[in-house]
Amino acid sequence: MTARGRKKRAAIPQGVVGRLPVYFRYLTELHSLGVDKVSSAQLGEALDFTAAQIRSDLSYFGSFGQQGYGYNVAELLQQVRQILGLNKRHSLVLVGAGNIGKAIGSYGWFRAEGFIIEAIFDIDPHLIGNIHGGCAIRHVDELKDYLQEHSADIGVIATPKEAAQAVCDVLVAGGVKGIWNFSPAQLNVAEGVIVENIHLTDSLLRLAFRLHEREQRLE
Amino acid sequence: MTARGRKKRAAIPQGVVGRLPVYFRYLTELHSLGVDKVSSAQLGEALDFTAAQIRSDLSYFGSFGQQGYGYNVAELLQQVRQILGLNKRHSLVLVGAGNIGKAIGSYGWFRAEGFIIEAIFDIDPHLIGNIHGGCAIRHVDELKDYLQEHSADIGVIATPKEAAQAVCDVLVAGGVKGIWNFSPAQLNVAEGVIVENIHLTDSLLRLAFRLHEREQRLE
Repeated sequence: MTARGRKKRAAIPQGVVGRLPVYFRYLTELHSLGVDKVSSAQLGEALDFTAAQIRSDLSYFGSFGQQGYGYNVAELLQQVRQILGLNKRHSLVLVGAGNIGKAIGSYGWFRAEGFIIEAIFDIDPHLIGNIHGGCAIRHVDELKDYLQEHSADIGVIATPKEAAQAVCDVLVAGGVKGIWNFSPAQLNVAEGVIVENIHLTDSLLRLAFRLHEREQRLE
Repeated sequence: MTARGRKKRAAIPQGVVGRLPVYFRYLTELHSLGVDKVSSAQLGEALDFTAAQIRSDLSYFGSFGQQGYGYNVAELLQQVRQILGLNKRHSLVLVGAGNIGKAIGSYGWFRAEGFIIEAIFDIDPHLIGNIHGGCAIRHVDELKDYLQEHSADIGVIATPKEAAQAVCDVLVAGGVKGIWNFSPAQLNVAEGVIVENIHLTDSLLRLAFRLHEREQRLE
Protein backbone atom coordinates (compact mmCIF):
# COMPACT_ATOMS: atom_id res chain seq x y z
CA MET A 1 0.00 0.00 0.00
CA THR A 2 1.45 3.34 -0.98
CA ALA A 3 1.30 6.52 1.08
CA ARG A 4 0.18 8.70 -1.80
CA GLY A 5 -3.34 9.65 -1.00
CA ARG A 6 -4.83 6.43 0.33
CA LYS A 7 -8.04 7.59 1.99
CA LYS A 8 -8.62 6.40 5.54
CA ARG A 9 -10.49 3.10 5.74
CA ALA A 10 -13.15 4.50 8.08
CA ALA A 11 -14.07 6.96 5.34
CA ILE A 12 -15.37 4.35 2.87
CA PRO A 13 -18.96 5.47 2.17
CA GLN A 14 -21.86 3.00 2.34
CA GLY A 15 -22.38 3.20 -1.42
CA VAL A 16 -18.84 2.02 -2.05
CA VAL A 17 -19.23 -0.75 0.56
CA GLY A 18 -22.32 -1.96 -1.27
CA ARG A 19 -20.32 -2.17 -4.51
CA LEU A 20 -17.36 -4.02 -2.94
CA PRO A 21 -18.90 -7.49 -3.44
CA VAL A 22 -19.60 -6.63 -7.08
CA TYR A 23 -15.94 -5.68 -7.63
CA PHE A 24 -14.88 -8.78 -5.73
CA ARG A 25 -16.99 -11.12 -7.87
CA TYR A 26 -15.93 -9.58 -11.14
CA LEU A 27 -12.23 -9.37 -10.30
CA THR A 28 -12.29 -12.98 -9.08
CA GLU A 29 -13.72 -13.99 -12.44
CA LEU A 30 -11.14 -11.99 -14.42
CA HIS A 31 -8.36 -13.44 -12.28
CA SER A 32 -9.58 -17.01 -12.79
CA LEU A 33 -9.65 -16.36 -16.55
CA GLY A 34 -6.01 -15.31 -16.39
CA VAL A 35 -6.66 -11.64 -17.20
CA ASP A 36 -3.75 -9.47 -15.99
CA LYS A 37 -5.05 -5.96 -16.34
CA VAL A 38 -8.31 -4.11 -16.69
CA SER A 39 -9.14 -0.48 -17.46
CA SER A 40 -11.71 1.61 -15.60
CA ALA A 41 -13.67 1.80 -18.87
CA GLN A 42 -13.79 -2.02 -19.12
CA LEU A 43 -14.76 -2.36 -15.45
CA GLY A 44 -17.42 0.29 -15.91
CA GLU A 45 -18.93 -1.39 -18.93
CA ALA A 46 -18.97 -4.83 -17.30
CA LEU A 47 -20.44 -3.61 -14.01
CA ASP A 48 -22.69 -0.88 -15.40
CA PHE A 49 -20.96 1.90 -13.47
CA THR A 50 -19.36 4.98 -15.06
CA ALA A 51 -15.58 4.94 -15.50
CA ALA A 52 -15.42 8.02 -13.24
CA GLN A 53 -17.29 6.16 -10.49
CA ILE A 54 -14.92 3.20 -10.85
CA ARG A 55 -11.88 5.48 -10.52
CA SER A 56 -13.40 7.19 -7.49
CA ASP A 57 -14.33 3.88 -5.82
CA LEU A 58 -10.93 2.34 -6.45
CA SER A 59 -9.16 5.36 -4.98
CA TYR A 60 -10.65 4.28 -1.63
CA PHE A 61 -8.78 1.01 -1.98
CA GLY A 62 -5.53 2.91 -2.46
CA SER A 63 -5.36 1.66 -6.02
CA PHE A 64 -4.41 3.86 -8.95
CA GLY A 65 -4.52 2.76 -12.55
CA GLN A 66 -1.69 3.66 -14.90
CA GLN A 67 -2.59 5.78 -17.91
CA GLY A 68 -2.79 3.52 -20.94
CA TYR A 69 -2.37 0.39 -18.82
CA GLY A 70 -5.25 0.22 -16.37
CA TYR A 71 -5.32 -1.73 -13.13
CA ASN A 72 -3.41 -4.87 -12.21
CA VAL A 73 -6.17 -7.44 -11.60
CA ALA A 74 -4.31 -9.57 -9.04
CA GLU A 75 -3.27 -6.54 -6.95
CA LEU A 76 -6.71 -4.98 -7.06
CA LEU A 77 -8.36 -8.27 -6.08
CA GLN A 78 -5.93 -8.63 -3.19
CA GLN A 79 -6.81 -5.13 -1.97
CA VAL A 80 -10.54 -5.81 -2.19
CA ARG A 81 -10.07 -9.09 -0.31
CA GLN A 82 -8.17 -7.28 2.42
CA ILE A 83 -10.80 -4.56 2.80
CA LEU A 84 -13.54 -7.21 2.95
CA GLY A 85 -11.65 -9.06 5.69
CA LEU A 86 -11.35 -12.18 3.54
CA ASN A 87 -7.78 -12.93 4.51
CA LYS A 88 -8.92 -14.45 7.79
CA ARG A 89 -10.85 -17.61 8.53
CA HIS A 90 -14.45 -17.20 9.73
CA SER A 91 -16.09 -19.89 11.80
CA LEU A 92 -19.84 -20.29 11.35
CA VAL A 93 -22.55 -22.15 13.22
CA LEU A 94 -25.71 -22.89 11.29
CA VAL A 95 -29.06 -23.25 13.04
CA GLY A 96 -31.82 -24.82 10.96
CA ALA A 97 -31.12 -27.72 8.62
CA GLY A 98 -34.14 -27.37 6.34
CA ASN A 99 -33.83 -26.66 2.62
CA ILE A 100 -32.30 -23.21 3.08
CA GLY A 101 -29.91 -24.50 5.73
CA LYS A 102 -28.91 -27.39 3.48
CA ALA A 103 -28.33 -25.02 0.58
CA ILE A 104 -26.04 -22.88 2.72
CA GLY A 105 -24.25 -25.91 4.16
CA SER A 106 -23.47 -27.31 0.73
CA TYR A 107 -22.35 -24.07 -0.93
CA GLY A 108 -18.72 -24.73 -1.83
CA TRP A 109 -17.89 -21.07 -2.35
CA PHE A 110 -18.19 -20.24 1.35
CA ARG A 111 -15.66 -22.88 2.35
CA ALA A 112 -13.28 -21.85 -0.45
CA GLU A 113 -13.34 -18.27 0.88
CA GLY A 114 -12.66 -19.31 4.47
CA PHE A 115 -16.23 -19.30 5.81
CA ILE A 116 -16.23 -22.67 7.56
CA ILE A 117 -19.42 -24.16 8.98
CA GLU A 118 -18.21 -25.77 12.20
CA ALA A 119 -21.51 -27.03 13.56
CA ILE A 120 -25.14 -27.44 12.48
CA PHE A 121 -28.15 -27.48 14.81
CA ASP A 122 -31.80 -28.37 14.33
CA ILE A 123 -34.79 -29.24 16.47
CA ASP A 124 -36.12 -32.12 14.35
CA PRO A 125 -35.20 -35.44 16.02
CA HIS A 126 -35.14 -37.13 12.59
CA LEU A 127 -32.27 -34.90 11.48
CA ILE A 128 -30.08 -35.15 14.58
CA GLY A 129 -26.95 -37.17 13.85
CA ASN A 130 -27.26 -36.86 10.06
CA ILE A 131 -24.07 -35.66 8.43
CA HIS A 132 -24.33 -32.57 6.26
CA GLY A 133 -21.33 -30.91 4.63
CA GLY A 134 -19.08 -32.89 6.95
CA CYS A 135 -20.93 -31.84 10.13
CA ALA A 136 -23.13 -34.04 12.30
CA ILE A 137 -26.41 -32.23 12.96
CA ARG A 138 -26.85 -31.59 16.71
CA HIS A 139 -29.94 -30.78 18.73
CA VAL A 140 -30.47 -27.05 19.14
CA ASP A 141 -30.60 -27.58 22.92
CA GLU A 142 -26.84 -28.18 22.72
CA LEU A 143 -26.15 -24.81 21.09
CA LYS A 144 -25.53 -22.96 24.36
CA ASP A 145 -23.03 -25.53 25.64
CA TYR A 146 -21.36 -25.73 22.24
CA LEU A 147 -20.71 -21.98 22.25
CA GLN A 148 -19.18 -22.18 25.73
CA GLU A 149 -16.57 -24.55 24.37
CA HIS A 150 -16.11 -23.22 20.82
CA SER A 151 -15.94 -19.68 19.56
CA ALA A 152 -17.91 -18.75 16.46
CA ASP A 153 -17.72 -15.56 14.41
CA ILE A 154 -21.01 -15.83 12.55
CA GLY A 155 -24.30 -17.45 13.45
CA VAL A 156 -26.50 -18.39 10.50
CA ILE A 157 -30.21 -18.48 11.32
CA ALA A 158 -32.24 -20.60 8.90
CA THR A 159 -35.10 -21.44 11.25
CA PRO A 160 -38.80 -20.64 10.98
CA LYS A 161 -39.70 -17.12 12.01
CA GLU A 162 -41.08 -18.16 15.39
CA ALA A 163 -37.78 -19.68 16.56
CA ALA A 164 -35.44 -17.04 15.18
CA GLN A 165 -35.27 -14.53 18.06
CA ALA A 166 -34.70 -17.22 20.72
CA VAL A 167 -31.92 -18.78 18.62
CA CYS A 168 -30.43 -15.34 18.03
CA ASP A 169 -30.40 -14.64 21.79
CA VAL A 170 -28.50 -17.89 22.47
CA LEU A 171 -26.00 -17.09 19.69
CA VAL A 172 -25.36 -13.56 20.96
CA ALA A 173 -25.10 -14.69 24.61
CA GLY A 174 -22.58 -17.25 23.36
CA GLY A 175 -20.35 -14.51 21.94
CA VAL A 176 -21.34 -14.50 18.27
CA LYS A 177 -20.75 -11.02 16.79
CA GLY A 178 -22.34 -11.47 13.37
CA ILE A 179 -25.78 -12.87 12.55
CA TRP A 180 -26.68 -13.94 9.02
CA ASN A 181 -30.45 -14.12 9.18
CA PHE A 182 -32.48 -16.03 6.59
CA SER A 183 -35.68 -16.04 8.63
CA PRO A 184 -38.35 -13.38 7.99
CA ALA A 185 -37.99 -12.21 11.62
CA GLN A 186 -36.83 -8.69 12.49
CA LEU A 187 -34.15 -9.55 15.07
CA ASN A 188 -33.25 -7.53 18.15
CA VAL A 189 -29.61 -7.78 19.17
CA ALA A 190 -27.27 -6.18 21.67
CA GLU A 191 -25.31 -3.15 20.48
CA GLY A 192 -22.18 -4.07 18.59
CA VAL A 193 -23.68 -7.23 17.09
CA ILE A 194 -24.09 -7.04 13.31
CA VAL A 195 -27.15 -8.49 11.60
CA GLU A 196 -27.23 -9.09 7.86
CA ASN A 197 -30.66 -10.16 6.63
CA ILE A 198 -31.66 -12.17 3.61
CA HIS A 199 -35.40 -11.61 3.49
CA LEU A 200 -36.66 -13.71 0.58
CA THR A 201 -40.18 -12.37 0.93
CA ASP A 202 -39.02 -8.72 0.83
CA SER A 203 -37.07 -9.42 -2.32
CA LEU A 204 -40.07 -11.05 -4.02
CA LEU A 205 -42.29 -8.16 -2.90
CA ARG A 206 -39.90 -5.62 -4.43
CA LEU A 207 -40.01 -7.58 -7.68
CA ALA A 208 -43.81 -7.72 -7.58
CA PHE A 209 -43.96 -3.97 -6.92
CA ARG A 210 -41.67 -3.15 -9.84
CA LEU A 211 -43.68 -5.45 -12.16
CA HIS A 212 -46.90 -3.81 -11.02
CA GLU A 213 -45.41 -0.32 -11.50
CA ARG A 214 -44.21 -1.31 -14.99
CA GLU A 215 -47.68 -2.54 -15.99
CA GLN A 216 -49.25 0.69 -14.80
CA ARG A 217 -46.79 2.75 -16.86
CA LEU A 218 -47.72 0.70 -19.92
CA GLU A 219 -51.46 1.04 -19.38
CA MET B 1 -58.97 6.06 -1.71
CA THR B 2 -59.71 9.69 -0.95
CA ALA B 3 -58.90 12.64 -3.19
CA ARG B 4 -57.37 14.70 -0.40
CA GLY B 5 -53.72 14.89 -1.17
CA ARG B 6 -52.95 11.37 -2.32
CA LYS B 7 -49.57 11.76 -4.00
CA LYS B 8 -49.25 10.27 -7.47
CA ARG B 9 -48.13 6.65 -7.45
CA ALA B 10 -45.23 7.34 -9.82
CA ALA B 11 -43.83 9.69 -7.20
CA ILE B 12 -43.10 7.01 -4.58
CA PRO B 13 -39.35 7.39 -3.91
CA GLN B 14 -37.03 4.37 -3.91
CA GLY B 15 -36.45 4.67 -0.16
CA VAL B 16 -40.18 4.28 0.50
CA VAL B 17 -40.37 1.36 -1.94
CA GLY B 18 -37.59 -0.37 -0.02
CA ARG B 19 -39.58 0.03 3.20
CA LEU B 20 -42.87 -1.26 1.73
CA PRO B 21 -42.07 -4.93 2.42
CA VAL B 22 -41.19 -4.03 6.01
CA TYR B 23 -44.58 -2.33 6.48
CA PHE B 24 -46.26 -5.25 4.76
CA ARG B 25 -44.67 -7.84 7.03
CA TYR B 26 -45.38 -5.93 10.21
CA LEU B 27 -48.96 -4.99 9.33
CA THR B 28 -49.66 -8.62 8.32
CA GLU B 29 -48.44 -9.70 11.75
CA LEU B 30 -50.54 -7.10 13.59
CA HIS B 31 -53.58 -8.07 11.52
CA SER B 32 -53.11 -11.78 12.23
CA LEU B 33 -52.91 -10.95 15.94
CA GLY B 34 -56.25 -9.18 15.71
CA VAL B 35 -54.85 -5.67 16.31
CA ASP B 36 -57.26 -3.03 14.95
CA LYS B 37 -55.26 0.16 15.11
CA VAL B 38 -51.69 1.32 15.38
CA SER B 39 -50.11 4.73 15.94
CA SER B 40 -47.17 6.13 13.98
CA ALA B 41 -45.20 6.10 17.26
CA GLN B 42 -45.88 2.36 17.72
CA LEU B 43 -45.01 1.62 14.09
CA GLY B 44 -41.85 3.68 14.42
CA GLU B 45 -40.71 1.88 17.55
CA ALA B 46 -41.40 -1.57 16.11
CA LEU B 47 -39.72 -0.87 12.77
CA ASP B 48 -36.94 1.39 14.02
CA PHE B 49 -38.07 4.37 11.92
CA THR B 50 -38.99 7.79 13.33
CA ALA B 51 -42.68 8.57 13.73
CA ALA B 52 -42.21 11.48 11.30
CA GLN B 53 -40.79 9.12 8.67
CA ILE B 54 -43.72 6.74 9.18
CA ARG B 55 -46.22 9.58 8.69
CA SER B 56 -44.39 10.77 5.58
CA ASP B 57 -44.18 7.23 4.11
CA LEU B 58 -47.83 6.48 4.80
CA SER B 59 -48.94 9.70 3.13
CA TYR B 60 -47.71 8.15 -0.13
CA PHE B 61 -50.22 5.37 0.38
CA GLY B 62 -53.02 7.91 0.73
CA SER B 63 -53.43 6.94 4.37
CA PHE B 64 -53.88 9.45 7.15
CA GLY B 65 -53.98 8.56 10.80
CA GLN B 66 -56.53 10.16 13.08
CA GLN B 67 -55.21 12.21 15.97
CA GLY B 68 -55.44 10.14 19.13
CA TYR B 69 -56.54 7.05 17.21
CA GLY B 70 -53.77 6.16 14.77
CA TYR B 71 -54.13 4.04 11.66
CA ASN B 72 -56.65 1.33 10.90
CA VAL B 73 -54.49 -1.78 10.48
CA ALA B 74 -56.75 -3.63 8.02
CA GLU B 75 -57.15 -0.58 5.76
CA LEU B 76 -53.48 0.24 5.81
CA LEU B 77 -52.55 -3.36 5.03
CA GLN B 78 -55.01 -3.38 2.14
CA GLN B 79 -53.42 -0.20 0.73
CA VAL B 80 -49.90 -1.62 1.02
CA ARG B 81 -51.06 -4.85 -0.66
CA GLN B 82 -52.55 -2.85 -3.51
CA ILE B 83 -49.42 -0.75 -4.03
CA LEU B 84 -47.29 -3.90 -4.00
CA GLY B 85 -49.54 -5.47 -6.64
CA LEU B 86 -50.46 -8.34 -4.31
CA ASN B 87 -54.11 -8.39 -5.27
CA LYS B 88 -53.32 -10.32 -8.44
CA ARG B 89 -52.07 -13.83 -8.99
CA HIS B 90 -48.46 -14.22 -10.18
CA SER B 91 -47.42 -17.32 -12.09
CA LEU B 92 -43.83 -18.44 -11.58
CA VAL B 93 -41.58 -20.91 -13.32
CA LEU B 94 -38.62 -22.18 -11.34
CA VAL B 95 -35.43 -23.31 -13.04
CA GLY B 96 -33.04 -25.30 -10.85
CA ALA B 97 -34.30 -27.86 -8.36
CA GLY B 98 -31.27 -28.01 -6.10
CA ASN B 99 -31.40 -27.04 -2.42
CA ILE B 100 -32.20 -23.39 -3.08
CA GLY B 101 -34.82 -24.30 -5.66
CA LYS B 102 -36.38 -26.79 -3.25
CA ALA B 103 -36.43 -24.20 -0.50
CA ILE B 104 -38.27 -21.76 -2.78
CA GLY B 105 -40.63 -24.44 -4.05
CA SER B 106 -41.67 -25.46 -0.55
CA TYR B 107 -42.11 -21.97 0.92
CA GLY B 108 -45.80 -21.82 1.80
CA TRP B 109 -45.86 -18.03 2.12
CA PHE B 110 -45.40 -17.50 -1.62
CA ARG B 111 -48.43 -19.60 -2.48
CA ALA B 112 -50.53 -17.97 0.24
CA GLU B 113 -49.75 -14.55 -1.29
CA GLY B 114 -50.65 -15.63 -4.82
CA PHE B 115 -47.15 -16.42 -6.14
CA ILE B 116 -47.84 -19.82 -7.70
CA ILE B 117 -45.02 -22.00 -8.99
CA GLU B 118 -46.55 -23.51 -12.12
CA ALA B 119 -43.58 -25.51 -13.39
CA ILE B 120 -40.11 -26.57 -12.27
CA PHE B 121 -37.19 -27.36 -14.58
CA ASP B 122 -33.79 -28.95 -14.02
CA ILE B 123 -31.05 -30.53 -16.08
CA ASP B 124 -30.33 -33.49 -13.78
CA PRO B 125 -31.92 -36.66 -15.27
CA HIS B 126 -32.30 -38.09 -11.74
CA LEU B 127 -34.65 -35.25 -10.79
CA ILE B 128 -36.86 -35.23 -13.90
CA GLY B 129 -40.35 -36.53 -13.07
CA ASN B 130 -39.94 -36.06 -9.30
CA ILE B 131 -42.82 -34.17 -7.76
CA HIS B 132 -41.93 -31.08 -5.76
CA GLY B 133 -44.52 -28.73 -4.25
CA GLY B 134 -47.15 -30.36 -6.48
CA CYS B 135 -45.13 -29.88 -9.71
CA ALA B 136 -43.42 -32.60 -11.71
CA ILE B 137 -39.85 -31.53 -12.46
CA ARG B 138 -39.31 -31.23 -16.23
CA HIS B 139 -36.13 -31.18 -18.29
CA VAL B 140 -34.85 -27.67 -18.90
CA ASP B 141 -34.84 -28.41 -22.65
CA GLU B 142 -38.64 -28.24 -22.44
CA LEU B 143 -38.62 -24.69 -21.01
CA LYS B 144 -38.86 -22.94 -24.39
CA ASP B 145 -41.85 -25.03 -25.53
CA TYR B 146 -43.51 -24.68 -22.15
CA LEU B 147 -43.38 -20.88 -22.38
CA GLN B 148 -44.94 -20.97 -25.85
CA GLU B 149 -47.96 -22.69 -24.36
CA HIS B 150 -48.13 -21.09 -20.90
CA SER B 151 -47.55 -17.51 -19.85
CA ALA B 152 -45.43 -16.83 -16.79
CA ASP B 153 -44.95 -13.56 -14.92
CA ILE B 154 -41.78 -14.39 -13.03
CA GLY B 155 -38.88 -16.70 -13.80
CA VAL B 156 -36.92 -17.90 -10.79
CA ILE B 157 -33.31 -18.78 -11.58
CA ALA B 158 -31.75 -21.14 -9.04
CA THR B 159 -29.14 -22.68 -11.31
CA PRO B 160 -25.34 -22.66 -11.06
CA LYS B 161 -23.75 -19.44 -12.28
CA GLU B 162 -22.62 -20.94 -15.59
CA ALA B 163 -26.16 -21.81 -16.68
CA ALA B 164 -27.91 -18.66 -15.48
CA GLN B 165 -27.58 -16.35 -18.50
CA ALA B 166 -28.70 -19.01 -21.00
CA VAL B 167 -31.73 -19.84 -18.84
CA CYS B 168 -32.48 -16.13 -18.46
CA ASP B 169 -32.38 -15.68 -22.25
CA VAL B 170 -34.92 -18.50 -22.75
CA LEU B 171 -37.18 -17.05 -20.06
CA VAL B 172 -37.09 -13.53 -21.53
CA ALA B 173 -37.58 -14.80 -25.09
CA GLY B 174 -40.58 -16.71 -23.73
CA GLY B 175 -42.20 -13.50 -22.49
CA VAL B 176 -41.21 -13.48 -18.82
CA LYS B 177 -41.08 -9.87 -17.53
CA GLY B 178 -39.59 -10.45 -14.08
CA ILE B 179 -36.51 -12.47 -13.16
CA TRP B 180 -35.83 -13.51 -9.57
CA ASN B 181 -32.17 -14.47 -9.69
CA PHE B 182 -30.57 -16.61 -6.98
CA SER B 183 -27.45 -17.39 -9.00
CA PRO B 184 -24.30 -15.30 -8.50
CA ALA B 185 -24.41 -14.29 -12.18
CA GLN B 186 -24.84 -10.66 -13.25
CA LEU B 187 -27.65 -11.09 -15.81
CA ASN B 188 -28.13 -9.10 -19.00
CA VAL B 189 -31.75 -8.67 -20.02
CA ALA B 190 -33.72 -6.75 -22.62
CA GLU B 191 -35.01 -3.33 -21.63
CA GLY B 192 -38.25 -3.47 -19.70
CA VAL B 193 -37.42 -6.79 -18.01
CA ILE B 194 -36.96 -6.46 -14.27
CA VAL B 195 -34.27 -8.41 -12.44
CA GLU B 196 -34.30 -8.82 -8.68
CA ASN B 197 -31.16 -10.49 -7.37
CA ILE B 198 -30.57 -12.49 -4.23
CA HIS B 199 -26.80 -12.71 -4.13
CA LEU B 200 -25.98 -14.86 -1.10
CA THR B 201 -22.26 -14.30 -1.51
CA ASP B 202 -22.65 -10.49 -1.61
CA SER B 203 -24.68 -10.60 1.56
CA LEU B 204 -22.07 -12.72 3.37
CA LEU B 205 -19.31 -10.41 2.08
CA ARG B 206 -21.12 -7.36 3.46
CA LEU B 207 -21.40 -9.10 6.82
CA ALA B 208 -17.70 -10.03 6.73
CA PHE B 209 -16.79 -6.44 5.87
CA ARG B 210 -18.83 -5.00 8.73
CA LEU B 211 -17.32 -7.53 11.19
CA HIS B 212 -13.85 -6.64 9.96
CA GLU B 213 -14.57 -2.92 10.24
CA ARG B 214 -15.93 -3.45 13.77
CA GLU B 215 -12.78 -5.31 14.85
CA GLN B 216 -10.59 -2.55 13.49
CA ARG B 217 -12.54 0.07 15.43
CA LEU B 218 -12.04 -1.95 18.62
CA GLU B 219 -8.30 -2.42 18.07
